[in-house]
Amino acid sequence: MQILTGKEVAEKVYETLQSDCNAFVEKYGFPPTLAVVLVGNDPASQSYVQGKKQACLSLGFGHRDYHLAQTTSQKELLDLIHELNEDKTVHGILVQMPLPAHLDADTVIQNIKVEKDVDGFHPQNVGNLLIGKHGFVSCTPLGVLQILDYYGIPVEGKHVVVLGRSNIVGKPMASLLMQKGRDATVTVCHSKTENLTSITVQADILIAAIGKPLFVTESMVKEGCIVIDVGINRVEDASRKRGYRLVGDVDYEHVSPHCKAITPVPGGVGVMTIAMLMKNTMQAALQLAQKETQ
Amino acid sequence: MQILTGKEVAEKVYETLQSDCNAFVEKYGFPPTLAVVLVGNDPASQSYVQGKKQACLSLGFGHRDYHLAQTTSQKELLDLIHELNEDKTVHGILVQMPLPAHLDADTVIQNIKVEKDVDGFHPQNVGNLLIGKHGFVSCTPLGVLQILDYYGIPVEGKHVVVLGRSNIVGKPMASLLMQKGRDATVTVCHSKTENLTSITVQADILIAAIGKPLFVTESMVKEGCIVIDVGINRVEDASRKRGYRLVGDVDYEHVSPHCKAITPVPGGVGVMTIAMLMKNTMQAALQLAQKETQ
Ligand SMILES: NC(=O)c1ccc[n+]([C@@H]2O[C@H](COP(=O)([O-])OP(=O)(O)OC[C@H]3O[C@@H](n4cnc5c(N)ncnc54)[C@H](OP(=O)(O)O)[C@@H]3O)[C@@H](O)[C@H]2O)c1
Ligand SMILES: NC(=O)c1ccc[n+]([C@@H]2O[C@H](COP(=O)([O-])OP(=O)(O)OC[C@H]3O[C@@H](n4cnc5c(N)ncnc54)[C@H](OP(=O)(O)O)[C@@H]3O)[C@@H](O)[C@H]2O)c1
Repeated sequence: MQILTGKEVAEKVYETLQSDCNAFVEKYGFPPTLAVVLVGNDPASQSYVQGKKQACLSLGFGHRDYHLAQTTSQKELLDLIHELNEDKTVHGILVQMPLPAHLDADTVIQNIKVEKDVDGFHPQNVGNLLIGKHGFVSCTPLGVLQILDYYGIPVEGKHVVVLGRSNIVGKPMASLLMQKGRDATVTVCHSKTENLTSITVQADILIAAIGKPLFVTESMVKEGCIVIDVGINRVEDASRKRGYRLVGDVDYEHVSPHCKAITPVPGGVGVMTIAMLMKNTMQAALQLAQKETQ
Repeated sequence: MQILTGKEVAEKVYETLQSDCNAFVEKYGFPPTLAVVLVGNDPASQSYVQGKKQACLSLGFGHRDYHLAQTTSQKELLDLIHELNEDKTVHGILVQMPLPAHLDADTVIQNIKVEKDVDGFHPQNVGNLLIGKHGFVSCTPLGVLQILDYYGIPVEGKHVVVLGRSNIVGKPMASLLMQKGRDATVTVCHSKTENLTSITVQADILIAAIGKPLFVTESMVKEGCIVIDVGINRVEDASRKRGYRLVGDVDYEHVSPHCKAITPVPGGVGVMTIAMLMKNTMQAALQLAQKETQ
């Protein structure tokens, strides 16, 4: 059984990005720059935003922090987005989700310039993904793909079962894998799926993204399958100083002995998401800079 | 075994559209109007375009015919699109595919205003479909959905296997069915799928859209399944005056006895496509007219 450590993959990605970033600065005189917009004081969001800033700083990317009050109006937020859309020194724009309830996330996302939408959430980027055109792809599914590629796991013709159909993980994951060139046979399951186990046991590759701790058990997987665990769930743990530990959607202890390969939690998919965000920002910077100099 | 006759469903759709169209004309003083752009002289395309015109005329929709020479340049075509985008008396714009090889279809589609893209091919409409937002959906998959709804065939929790992953049928079909509210479990297969039969025999609902005459045989379906045959293929037939007949992707004669329900070819899905195009055009006209009068 092989452990697919995201950490190892992410390090390789960061190495490449480091040198790409240096070359970019050399060529254009300014760094690839990510603007991160946070509205309100949700502690989890603050820590995510912090992680993204850290990644920018350590790679030498430019970073812009916009921390807006909880009471920010839709118009104020959209004004900022439009300003960042026009700002030539900003290449990627990310609005940290979830937004406070009085703001309309869909409208906000739709107002981000498609060329700066490094989260890949704009409908046009989602559409380009589904029809197989170039665009930005949601970071977590992109991270899963990077892990599969790094470890040389073939997906062509294989039956991939995706558990979960969220707009940020399940659906883009399925879309990526079914494209020509990837050529997986993809099944998407969700909470309304009947006879779930009868489907998961057929998976050559099972990707769990449902947000239910240890949901995937031994009886749900085929001997020799590959399991990718996207889930990150907190479960109470009195033995830990912070009072909880992180577990995936897969019961790793009992499932892993039956797998050919599996991602751990933590240290699996989780670490890939920010790496892919940086990769998307690098791509945005290159495209925008090339366009400018045309 | 029930025969799902698209003709019956399409008639109902046309009835509703007829009265919607009358009400629209009454209210706004002009009809919902579709502009159809044809480049070149491909006979099949000419006959498709003719069918669309016919549907407009018989419902009382407005219709604009743009028949451009085979040698039309990309710029000329885009200029026309931009003109139609701005024209307030045009609500739907359709560019008949395929375009001559010297024209870039993707760019053309991307230049159609999202609000007038009644074919549902613009990446933003495709993206909205995948993330479950309002927008225009490709007509053939929409027609399949209409047939399922009309005959009260439940898809929630059911395993739907879609054969084919084209951007105009397979992918939007899968996207529609996996949405919250539809809630099917969806598998997408294609030419690289391994052990295809082992997957198709599990389908509660099998949707064939591959373009291979009589490809789906008896041994590929489960007893009591529902089969939707999107395929329209010409096969030589000396006994017919025109020298060919139309068959689906499904071997109807041998498969149908094993089905709970099945669409015939012709007279099944085929007749739905134009009906859905008219429905999308009606929707576009209503949205644009409402926006104008706001
Ligand atoms: N950086 C990262 O690694 C990263 C990034 C994003 C998310 N995640 C983690 O990945 C997990 C999923 O995230 P998400 O944002 O996709 O979650 P989400 O939006 O809550 O979606 C969960 C999906 O799982 C499905 N589901 C729930 N219970 C199920 C069940 N019993 N059987 C089958 N399907 C079930 C839901 O079905 P319905 O659609 O029917 O409700 C839904 O489609 C979470 O643990 C999250 O923390 C990690
Ligand atoms: N008005 C209507 O009713 C209407 C509208 C549109 C289309 N159609 C008909 O529907 C059919 C499909 O049209 P389309 O435009 O989607 O066709 P297409 O673009 O040619 O796509 C065909 C799809 O079928 C897959 N496929 C081909 N051979 C296969 C095999 N042996 N096993 C499994 N999958 C296979 C292909 O796989 P790869 O992706 O791997 O190549 C591809 O994804 C055609 O007969 C067409 O005439 C009817």
